[in-house]
Amino acid sequence: MTATTARDNDTRTRLLETALTLFTRHGVEGTSLQMIADALGVTKAAVYYHFKTKDEITEAVAEPALRQLGALVQEARGLRRRGAQVDHVLAGLVELVVGHRALAAVFSSDPGVARALERTLKGEDDVKDCMTDLLCGPDADDESKVAAHVALAGIALAGGSPDLADLPDDELRRHLLAAGRRLLGRPRPRA
Amino acid sequence: MTATTARDNDTRTRLLETALTLFTRHGVEGTSLQMIADALGVTKAAVYYHFKTKDEITEAVAEPALRQLGALVQEARGLRRRGAQVDHVLAGLVELVVGHRALAAVFSSDPGVARALERTLKGEDDVKDCMTDLLCGPDADDESKVAAHVALAGIALAGGSPDLADLPDDELRRHLLAAGRRLLGRPRPRA
Repeated sequence: MTATTARDNDTRTRLLETALTLFTRHGVEGTSLQMIADALGVTKAAVYYHFKTKDEITEAVAEPALRQLGALVQEARGLRRRGAQVDHVLAGLVELVVGHRALAAVFSSDPGVARALERTLKGEDDVKDCMTDLLCGPDADDESKVAAHVALAGIALAGGSPDLADLPDDELRRHLLAAGRRLLGRPRPRA
Repeated sequence: MTATTARDNDTRTRLLETALTLFTRHGVEGTSLQMIADALGVTKAAVYYHFKTKDEITEAVAEPALRQLGALVQEARGLRRRGAQVDHVLAGLVELVVGHRALAAVFSSDPGVARALERTLKGEDDVKDCMTDLLCGPDADDESKVAAHVALAGIALAGGSPDLADLPDDELRRHLLAAGRRLLGRPRPRA
């Protein structure tokens, strides 16, 4: 890697971190390329060098988590037992949420993110739908569907909640998992 | 009531309905007074006649639900048994969410709404904190706190989810209540 590419990558990383911070504070729709440039202390042209639109930035911010969720769905589909599928999706979601608390808050709650991702991911399977289906199983009744929605939204939002920001990762992980398992009728995990 | 006041009230009601629709679609931060005026087919001056800022509109859109939540908290505090408090808060929240699905989606998930309300309601008790406290009880351990957060966020978001929009109100109400009760360790309600 040349010095220039290393610096470019570094700027790109800082840009995405800054964008996420601003998204958390102002929402995606309330954040402009100019605000990102100002917060980074660079010109708007420098932002344009990396990303042409805010949608591209939103996609890049969410991309690692989306890729991880996609992999999780694939892995779960490869499991034979229903219970194992539910456990795998739940544990993977909790892991992701705890590992990326700020992203979880924005990604799960901001209508701007959802819209930007819809535009860019058109044609691909909606990963949220896939996760709901895995949590409910085929031919799920409405009660299970509602419980799966409450679990997905509740875990993602509670995980990103500022009220729980003081909780250490391992505790947050354990309690979110317990909540999800109770909601979906899975036995408590062994200590 | 004079004809003018009646018409003013009518415009105000339509304005708030239109604002909520636009908030759902674009988020609060992504909605401008101009967009609201355009959607209503009136001038921006006509919007200004009713509201000076978007914050005022946001507050007015959320106000009836906030008032209802505030009353719910007061009622629950008047109950003696912990179980009865939890049941009352849960049932009231579910009722509110099912009665105002679109508002629930925006109100619970848009960082713009939260910020606007924080600015306008400063000094008053945070109703979400009060509800969490009532659901957890005093001296709650972290597991109960996390479960209460999952329940509040999960019910509000699942209730407003477009995926569940086809579910009739009474079914959505029953299933959200069941999910909340399971999360909080309350017995299943009798049919």
